[in-house]
Amino acid sequence: MRNLKIGILGANGAVGREMLRLIEEYKLPVSELRLLTGPHSVGHRVLFRGEEQRLLPTEAGSFAALDYVLGAADAAVSRRCADAIRSSGAVYIDNSSLFRLDPEVPLIVPEINGGDAFRHKGIIANPNCCTILTLMAVAGIHLLSPIRSMTVSTYQSVSGAGLAGLRELEAQLRATIEGEELTAEVFPAPIAGNVIPCIGAITANGYTEEEMKMQWEGRRILHQPDLCVTCTCVRVPVLRSHSIAVTVRTEDLVSPADAEKAIRAFQGCRVSDGERPYPTPLDVEDQDLVWVGRIRRDLCDPRALALWCCGDQLRKGAAANALQILCLLERSR
Amino acid sequence: MRNLKIGILGANGAVGREMLRLIEEYKLPVSELRLLTGPHSVGHRVLFRGEEQRLLPTEAGSFAALDYVLGAADAAVSRRCADAIRSSGAVYIDNSSLFRLDPEVPLIVPEINGGDAFRHKGIIANPNCCTILTLMAVAGIHLLSPIRSMTVSTYQSVSGAGLAGLRELEAQLRATIEGEELTAEVFPAPIAGNVIPCIGAITANGYTEEEMKMQWEGRRILHQPDLCVTCTCVRVPVLRSHSIAVTVRTEDLVSPADAEKAIRAFQGCRVSDGERPYPTPLDVEDQDLVWVGRIRRDLCDPRALALWCCGDQLRKGAAANALQILCLLERSR
Repeated sequence: MRNLKIGILGANGAVGREMLRLIEEYKLPVSELRLLTGPHSVGHRVLFRGEEQRLLPTEAGSFAALDYVLGAADAAVSRRCADAIRSSGAVYIDNSSLFRLDPEVPLIVPEINGGDAFRHKGIIANPNCCTILTLMAVAGIHLLSPIRSMTVSTYQSVSGAGLAGLRELEAQLRATIEGEELTAEVFPAPIAGNVIPCIGAITANGYTEEEMKMQWEGRRILHQPDLCVTCTCVRVPVLRSHSIAVTVRTEDLVSPADAEKAIRAFQGCRVSDGERPYPTPLDVEDQDLVWVGRIRRDLCDPRALALWCCGDQLRKGAAANALQILCLLERSR
Repeated sequence: MRNLKIGILGANGAVGREMLRLIEEYKLPVSELRLLTGPHSVGHRVLFRGEEQRLLPTEAGSFAALDYVLGAADAAVSRRCADAIRSSGAVYIDNSSLFRLDPEVPLIVPEINGGDAFRHKGIIANPNCCTILTLMAVAGIHLLSPIRSMTVSTYQSVSGAGLAGLRELEAQLRATIEGEELTAEVFPAPIAGNVIPCIGAITANGYTEEEMKMQWEGRRILHQPDLCVTCTCVRVPVLRSHSIAVTVRTEDLVSPADAEKAIRAFQGCRVSDGERPYPTPLDVEDQDLVWVGRIRRDLCDPRALALWCCGDQLRKGAAANALQILCLLERSR
């Protein structure tokens, strides 16, 4: 791989920090790293390969001469910066929701639809975290028989709400132990000792956008324009791994044994074995793999399977997937 | 109501203590209370209406001259005591799983199938906690059009594993805050900061018994012998309320608006309104009501609805339902 010049937009958030950590862990050849951030964090210092790096302001000229910009900021920041990034010539791999449904922008999970990445026009979108993890778990089944619909319940970690979410859970756990009142600012209710069945605002059809993403993004990634997904997104007091209970309906009958074989064979997936034949979110922290268990025949529909999966939200659910897209493009240069 | 002589079997467990507390809260007329327990707790004292009560050993003559025995022990204890209770003449309302599928024993949620209670032959079974709470949430819909199948994901509190479960979560939360190693004895993995997608042992069909109960018990309670339920039972780090994400498929099309009206009209149910149109488990602690929210059209099947419900596992999920069965029998004497 050539020496890369990489910018991280939103470098001081939970996903931006994870991107920095993974560039180091993956030993990517980097000749320049530009850590771009909002005005509050400019000048802060972070460690990269043992050396201090200063966080830089995000300005008009910030993207000049970069090969890639990794977007770890929200949709509003992405909107403000996208034109400047594009005209700089860098490839923009954006983790915000801004471009995910834009037909001109490939939406990529490398193991599933990596081939789509090569028709990019300067921007590639990184899917929603639950979409990535759920589709990774079922993509092996999709190769056996096309997926028609899914019923999904999520158990989403607080890292999905960024550093503020992580801090709110930690503060509330401390308050719980000390018998103090819990104050909720990031989440609409206390999250310690609780679960919250609503992530973001409820829209006209009764679903949140977070819940609709699995259907909207799933259609593009699986190339199944009629895919239906009914999703209930629930926040749970877990730090950084998401878990998902999935019922998946295929065109043809797929046996649980064949599904298990296909999932085992799918790159980036593992099936839990042994005494505990299922993953828990704590088990899968800080790794890129998506772990699957509890694969069984659905009892309501013979052409459906039920399963459970877990993955690290900050890694495969966000930063790792974005870096894997970068590596995919670089390897085929 | 006449003055009652009541025994509680397993009076020192989480459900037994809750039964005692609710007898006081409900102001049931009680002329004698016999708090029966295993050898480890005999002689312990508990407060009832401001007076100390001694916990008594469970012996051959323990049930003589009682009107009711409320069973809060496990299936093994229930098996050992059932004959003695029956021959004592007391009505045995058992919260264990022992008699739930016995066709000779009514399995009762008073608001749903209270009428079945009157054909009892000395024993009435109290359903599984998740079964009670889920069926309460959907029973109003069942009155509009018969329920054919359900896909269910649970978010179950640690109180379902009794006092030991409650203590394990509290100890692990403390260890988390203090940065210590988590030790798991009651649950198969740490539960603080985690979720565990397996409650009890996995059986031959890939489901746990806890997961099959919703179908087996649901068929009896709803009088729907063909009801199919696919369930994923998941333990979450919540103290005492269960939450359940349900997809419910009916024979005829039911609109979300009609479903909401029917649920509002169903005794013992409430629909969450206002800024947070959904309940969380913390919201519903220490009350007998089952709260419902997020009622919406399923996106995979027009004859299905998705919804979310929460209820206190120790109250309506166990002790309150048992006492409501007792009150039902007494009121119709």
